[in-house]
Amino acid sequence: MASRLRAEVRAEVRALREAGVRPRMSVVVASDDPATRVYVSSKAKTAEALGLEFTVVDLGSGASQSHLEATLDGLSRDPEVHGVMLEFPLSRGLDPDRALRRICPEKDVEGLTPGNLGLIAAGRESEALLAPTPQACLLLAATQGELRGERVAVVGPGRTVGRPLIHMLINHGATVTVVTEGTRDVRAALEGCRFVFVAVGRAALLGPDQLHDGQIVIDAGINVNEGGVCGDVNPAVYPRLAAYTPVPGGVGPVTSVLVFRNFVRALRLQRGENVHDR
Amino acid sequence: MASRLRAEVRAEVRALREAGVRPRMSVVVASDDPATRVYVSSKAKTAEALGLEFTVVDLGSGASQSHLEATLDGLSRDPEVHGVMLEFPLSRGLDPDRALRRICPEKDVEGLTPGNLGLIAAGRESEALLAPTPQACLLLAATQGELRGERVAVVGPGRTVGRPLIHMLINHGATVTVVTEGTRDVRAALEGCRFVFVAVGRAALLGPDQLHDGQIVIDAGINVNEGGVCGDVNPAVYPRLAAYTPVPGGVGPVTSVLVFRNFVRALRLQRGENVHDR
Repeated sequence: MASRLRAEVRAEVRALREAGVRPRMSVVVASDDPATRVYVSSKAKTAEALGLEFTVVDLGSGASQSHLEATLDGLSRDPEVHGVMLEFPLSRGLDPDRALRRICPEKDVEGLTPGNLGLIAAGRESEALLAPTPQACLLLAATQGELRGERVAVVGPGRTVGRPLIHMLINHGATVTVVTEGTRDVRAALEGCRFVFVAVGRAALLGPDQLHDGQIVIDAGINVNEGGVCGDVNPAVYPRLAAYTPVPGGVGPVTSVLVFRNFVRALRLQRGENVHDR
Repeated sequence: MASRLRAEVRAEVRALREAGVRPRMSVVVASDDPATRVYVSSKAKTAEALGLEFTVVDLGSGASQSHLEATLDGLSRDPEVHGVMLEFPLSRGLDPDRALRRICPEKDVEGLTPGNLGLIAAGRESEALLAPTPQACLLLAATQGELRGERVAVVGPGRTVGRPLIHMLINHGATVTVVTEGTRDVRAALEGCRFVFVAVGRAALLGPDQLHDGQIVIDAGINVNEGGVCGDVNPAVYPRLAAYTPVPGGVGPVTSVLVFRNFVRALRLQRGENVHDR
């Protein structure tokens, strides 16, 4: 799926360049988090492979809230920039929500601004830029069957994955159960759910004691431990499941390319093209 | 509960007037819907009884989107106006989401702007203005016990009640199941839920065939029929429930006063006061 999507995005970027557009994405860093720089250079490499320009605005760890907001305002106004990303985490003391409000919704390739989240919550997904991780979860789930009318569960209602995913599942007509940290009996809450989506960030959170035989499990967790990277699902349960996404190699690669599919969509939105049903 | 809240709001408005503030709420109408005018005059009466000034800006049914947005921009900037409401439905052809973005979040007494919904979805409720109907649902449910760790259901994920309510219930640590129009077996989906919240707008949607004995049911539905007003719950099931809110006389009266409690909170936000935990 990731490589098919990548080929599609590459072709779209080529067509835009041939139409005289110089597609450019900007990413803003405001922290000294070392992992952030690894993620950013990986995105830069993908951008290059896809044929678009990529600018990093690194404010370092000492930027003030007003400097960060002014930077995002400037990129939102700059007609030569078509996509804007703000890397998390921010330095301590910076307010992510106030910062996100300064990214104009039409350039918000990560779908995190209140404007895009509001459209999704209003059931107007076709006009929004959708956060790539929940979008990847839905695309992967859809390979296993219709969501409409199915009972599904979202484990972990975090702001970047779980919360937008809940709205998107509702928009698809699923019956959605949300498991939170307050949930007493996870296994009971997951009973009867055909699909289980998990995005908590705790290794082996869901295993044979929580999941039921034959479930379809989409794992958006990423945990770094001594052995490398793993998800939120204990692989011991894999043989009992109808289908699952491994970590690494599942949700992640699809998410990475969806950022850039969003970028192409953002560019078309800015050019006033009709992007519905794309 | 409604009369206790009303007395609290009246005392707060009095204190603000004594401090030299002239509290003023403005409501914008952009339709020729007759019911809207009934609701607005009822709000005007409540406003008067609470001691605050109330202005109706009636754009009639022919207003353009740009006129509507300019009106909301003006009220958002006007320092003499402390609360702004936009009455729904709007005339055909007007875009409610684009209009709502023009109400500044600190004056959004109905809690419907993307800024306030975004804060709730980010778990930052204490900084937001909360939509009055889901707020009333939570206050009424809380009289029957803690929500944390309980299984609850939201029937009807509409934009003004169900969707914000889902986030608020998650923020309270409940395990939330959302029943949509795609749900095949409502009774099965509601099984094991201690609290059931319903906000669909269909008379007698939930009755003995859907609800389980001993559930606590909060009914935010309002349906007008030949016999008057009724909710979404069939009263035939009332004797089997542990508790319920009747319609009329349940969620409605609490919601009405919470608009004005939001107004006082909005005014304090604008004065830069610390409103957390209020």
